[in-house]
This record gives sequence, C-alpha cells and structure tokens, in this order.
Amino acid sequence: MTSYAPLQNDTFLRACMRQATPYTPLWLMRQAGRYLPEYCATRARAGSFMGLATNTDYATEVTLQPLERYPLDAAILFSDILTVPDAMGLGLSFAQGEGPRFATSVRDEAAVDKLEVPDMEKLRYVFDAVTSIRKALNGRVPLIGFSGSPWTLACYMVEGKGSDDYRMVKTMLYSRPDLMHRILAINADAVATYLNAQIDAGAQAVMIFDSWGGVLADGAFQSFSLEYTKRVLAQLKRVGTDGQIVPRLVFTKGGGLWLKEMAPLDCEVLGVDWTVNLGSARALVGGAENGPGKALQGNIDPNVLFAPPAQIATEVGRVLDSFGAPYQGTGTGPTQIFNLGHGISQYTPPENVAALVEAVHSHSKAQRT
Amino acid sequence: MTSYAPLQNDTFLRACMRQATPYTPLWLMRQAGRYLPEYCATRARAGSFMGLATNTDYATEVTLQPLERYPLDAAILFSDILTVPDAMGLGLSFAQGEGPRFATSVRDEAAVDKLEVPDMEKLRYVFDAVTSIRKALNGRVPLIGFSGSPWTLACYMVEGKGSDDYRMVKTMLYSRPDLMHRILAINADAVATYLNAQIDAGAQAVMIFDSWGGVLADGAFQSFSLEYTKRVLAQLKRVGTDGQIVPRLVFTKGGGLWLKEMAPLDCEVLGVDWTVNLGSARALVGGAENGPGKALQGNIDPNVLFAPPAQIATEVGRVLDSFGAPYQGTGTGPTQIFNLGHGISQYTPPENVAALVEAVHSHSKAQRT
Repeated sequence: MTSYAPLQNDTFLRACMRQATPYTPLWLMRQAGRYLPEYCATRARAGSFMGLATNTDYATEVTLQPLERYPLDAAILFSDILTVPDAMGLGLSFAQGEGPRFATSVRDEAAVDKLEVPDMEKLRYVFDAVTSIRKALNGRVPLIGFSGSPWTLACYMVEGKGSDDYRMVKTMLYSRPDLMHRILAINADAVATYLNAQIDAGAQAVMIFDSWGGVLADGAFQSFSLEYTKRVLAQLKRVGTDGQIVPRLVFTKGGGLWLKEMAPLDCEVLGVDWTVNLGSARALVGGAENGPGKALQGNIDPNVLFAPPAQIATEVGRVLDSFGAPYQGTGTGPTQIFNLGHGISQYTPPENVAALVEAVHSHSKAQRT
Repeated sequence: MTSYAPLQNDTFLRACMRQATPYTPLWLMRQAGRYLPEYCATRARAGSFMGLATNTDYATEVTLQPLERYPLDAAILFSDILTVPDAMGLGLSFAQGEGPRFATSVRDEAAVDKLEVPDMEKLRYVFDAVTSIRKALNGRVPLIGFSGSPWTLACYMVEGKGSDDYRMVKTMLYSRPDLMHRILAINADAVATYLNAQIDAGAQAVMIFDSWGGVLADGAFQSFSLEYTKRVLAQLKRVGTDGQIVPRLVFTKGGGLWLKEMAPLDCEVLGVDWTVNLGSARALVGGAENGPGKALQGNIDPNVLFAPPAQIATEVGRVLDSFGAPYQGTGTGPTQIFNLGHGISQYTPPENVAALVEAVHSHSKAQRT
C-alpha cells in the first residue's frame, strides 16, 4: 500500500457518495487539453498525442495544468479512451488535426478470433502516470481514472476511426450479433482489469465513458452497451489503495432516454449531457434522503463557454437551479457534480473557463445560504 | 382549384389522422436518393443537385423512382431542406461528395438586418415540382411537402455548412439571443409561407424537419426550436386544393426527451428517431381511443438495411411490436406510420429496401388478424 498525502478537498468524492458539500464541486471533461496554451506547448515537446500520453512526466504535467489556473475540485488522468484496444494490438495513432485512428480494424470473424484481454504490462505507462499524478497532486483534489465503455471501444475497433453514421459497427451488430457480443465481452473484461489496475495505482474514482452509447437504437442500447457496462461494474474493486471507497461514474452521451434503465447500475454517479433536464433526472434517479439513488454529473453545453462571462454566469445559474435545492442534511441525498455535457472545445477562451468555475462555486454557495 | 385523380391508397393519410388501416403504412426519409442507381443516372444528367431540384421534370422523375421499385405508401417531394435560405440570397450549393454549403453565412447583426421572408417567386420551381409530381402520381399515393424547421435552417445559415459542434450558431445563441430570435422569427414566417404555397400547389401533407433540434440543451430547445415550430404551425393552412385536410408532421431528430412537451403542438404526427421506444412514446403522446393524441412516425435504424433480409424482417417485427397492438376501431386511436429514424444511407443495397417494405406490410397485416 502506497501512502499518499491526506486529501484536502473532498467535495467531489462526497458529492459522488450523495453527501452534502458546502458548494457544488466541479471538474470539466477534457480539462487538460488543447484550449490551454501550456498544454499545446507540452504536446509540442512530446511530439505527438501518444508521445504525451505514454510519458509519465508529460502526462503528470498536463494533468495538473488546469488545476494551476482554476480551483477545480477533481483531476482526471490525462490519457485516451482508446488505450485498451491499442494494447490489444490495433495500433492507435492521432494524425495532426484529426481524431484517433487504428492501423487494424476488426471487421470479420478472423479478426474477432484474434482479440483477447491484453497483457496489462502494455498499459504500464497509464498506471505509472496514475501513481505519478496522485503523488504530484499531493492531496489537493482527488484523481479520477477512466476508460471507454465496451461499446464505445467496439465502435472505434470496428470502424477503425471516428464515424458519423456508425455503418460498419452497426452492420456487424445487425448482421452478426454473435461477433459483436464476443467483442463486447472481451472489451468488458479488459476494461474492468484496466480500471482495477488504475485503482491499484492510486485512482480515487473511476469513470466509464460510453461516448457512443447514444447512437444505438432503443433495445440495442440495452443489449450491446448497458449490459456490458454492467459486466465491467460487476468486476470493479470497491476500495482503493488508501482504504477509501472508489466511486464509479458512468456517462452515456445521448443516453438521457435510458436514465431509468441505468438507475439499477452498480455505480454511484450517472453523467448526463445537456439535453437532459437535471430536475427530471433527479426525480427519476436521484433518490430520496437516506434512500438509494445516484449522484448526477453534468451538464452545461460546452458552447456556453463561447459567450461573455455575464451570460456564462446566467447559464451556470440555470443549470444549478434546474437541479433544484442542494441536499444539506447529514446523511445522504440527491447531489450534483457540475460538469460540461461533453468535452471542452479546443477553441474555448481560457478566461471563460475561469468565469464558469467562479460562477459554479459562487452560485452554488449562495444556493446553500 | 386544380382537379387531381382520386387517391387510391389513403393508408398514410388515414394513419396521420389516427384512423385504422389494414396495415401500417410506410415511406422512407430520403427514399429518392443516391442508393438508387436510377437516381444517380438522373442526377448525372442534371449536372448537380440543385440542377436536379430546380428542374420540374427531373424532380418529378426522381420522386417517382422509389415508387416504381417498392409499394411505398407515400411520396415525398424531391427537394432540399435549405431551399428557403437559398431564396433569401445565401447561395446554396452542393459540392460533389460533400454536404450543403452557403456562399454567405449569417454571423453578425449586419447580416441579420439583411434577412427577410423571401419572395416566393424565387421558389416557384418547388411549387411547380409539387404540382407536376401530384399529377404524375395520378392518385397512386399521397404527396408530402416539406421544409427544414426554423432552428435547423438557422444552424446552416449561421454555420454556412454542416457542423459537428454547432459552435458558431450556439455562440450566437448564447451571446446574442436577440439576434438568434430575429433570425428564427423570419425563418418561421418564411417556412409557413413556403409550406402554404406547397399546399396550394397540391401537397397532401406537410412535414417540418427539425433535423438539428436535438443538439440543443434542455431549455434552449424549447425557446429556440419548439417555439418557432409552433409559430410555423399556427400559420399553416388546414385544407388542400382538393378540400381534404392536410396533416402536419413534425420530426425532431434527437428530440425523444422532449416528446411530452411536443404533445400540445398543433399538428397530427410526431416523428421519432430510433433511440425512442415506440411503446413509451405511444403511452406519452399517442392518446386514447377517440381522444386527442398524435400519430407516431418512425423509427427503425437505417443501418438495419445493411443486414441480410432475415435480420431486417426480425428488426422490423421488433419495431412494429414495440408500438403495440394496432388501432382497429372505427373512430380514432393510436397509430404508427413506419419510417426510418433518419434518412436512408447512400450505401444501402436497393434489394434490402424491398425486404424492409415487404416485412413492414406483411408483419403489420399479421398483427391485425
């Protein structure tokens, strides 16, 4: 057991556990990223995205950059959702100005036959980064580890890259559901092993990004995404190296219609995008005082960050108010973790992020007086 | 008043009015399109997409092509959702292999100041096509006219082309909501005038495509999309040139979460995409026997068409069964119009469309016995 500095800001972890906090904690999806000039400088030194992600010092440096600028309440490991299929041998790369791409795509039975849960040694760079970041944080805020969901990984593995119609992966899903289920089962076991290793390396919470769950049809979502998220969750460790509970967050972009079906998931937090009304989501899955329920994470439109500070504050207030009165008891009750409904845009002016963070903290404090 | 041949197949119009039909009628979004070799041949002769859309004979020819192949229950005008902003002077074009693009985009107050409801004479080619197609159909099936929704048109007008993040249009929405409301009010009045002229030209139903409503945040959808769809609907004619009621269909892609808020719309049909469970949608907005309610249109994933015929039939059965028992009374009750949840892919094998049409008709007949 590694010993780390005691945690100074536990608002994020408390909100995950549906406990009261003095204000609504926040972090931002992709908070370490291209909108920050210091990130671009580090990436330039690293030479490439994978050069950045696979180097412990660089990964630590960029993870901490947004915390130097903004009083965020959590850090998230700097990595990519596609490291697991890369370790399966599919060859991940990021061409300049483009999204991820695999050298090999998985389109037929022969390719599926070759898949297996990768040797976690191939992902050692991720676990090393987790430990290094945890140490560098020195107890400032908790560190979130993460992975893509089994379905989201499968999308990229079959398509070979991003897609706007998901034709290849859905052709397999509808034509050869048996093959799709085989890929998803392997992915689920790999993701669970991967997240457990992040927990062992020092992650204090873990998040599953089901970024493409929302492109599935009703029925297919339940069978091909939700079922395998469950399979991951069933295998996850509950306690971290420091003996603390490790909250589990599940975010399905575009999954607002299935929130009620996600309520029984064995996790603490459900993330929602900006199409969801937080008050309705709270009524559906937020739970009553001292009863079961999920904390909710989200959900402002990242494009709000292109408006001037006054409008940003107005929209932040709208999102916080839509969730309703914050829980202030001494037990458990409905809680929110403020976040964007999707990753921050690379074109975001950094000073607008400061305005957003300030507005979340001040408005949510005012809600509690 | 022009006189047309009497209608031989009124299943689509009856289902729109929530009346019983001997089977579930179907048509396919973008049914006249690039997946058909005969369409590609006509487009090649026309030289360009706009050359095709603006020529009455070509537009008539391609509208009827899918009906020659498949026993579809409605025809839809061959045109584009962006003809209205083109007529506003923004200069619509389609580069080969790319989406629509405007020569001028609307990004500031000066550009908004110049916008006005266009002279409908500039859209004469559309109305001429409607009349020509109606005549050529000779009563076989009804003809649907259509337009993009005010918000969807605004997306393209501000972005200047398709977008994957809607950054420009949302920057305006959040920074200068006053400008966005001005654009939307003009668009709504233009769309209403445009659809009314299609009705006068012979359209037997009209559909509003809110293709990008689903990218809006909760709250913004209601103010910037739904409100202006209402404004269009309030101005629409209720009766066509032949004295028949003209049903109005509204389809918001990605709008499943707001179905209940769409229930009060003054229209007959709500379209839904494949993320929506039709049984739940029916319970929410389908209405009881002889009570108010909406017919539902949708919603199979177009990617199902890449599976073999047996799987297509299985998925068709799943979608029809999810809607539940068809209404078979003599009054009004919950009805479905079968459709895709989005436009058909250009890569679709035409023979698979035949399998889908056959499966819809045979399975829905069997449901009624």
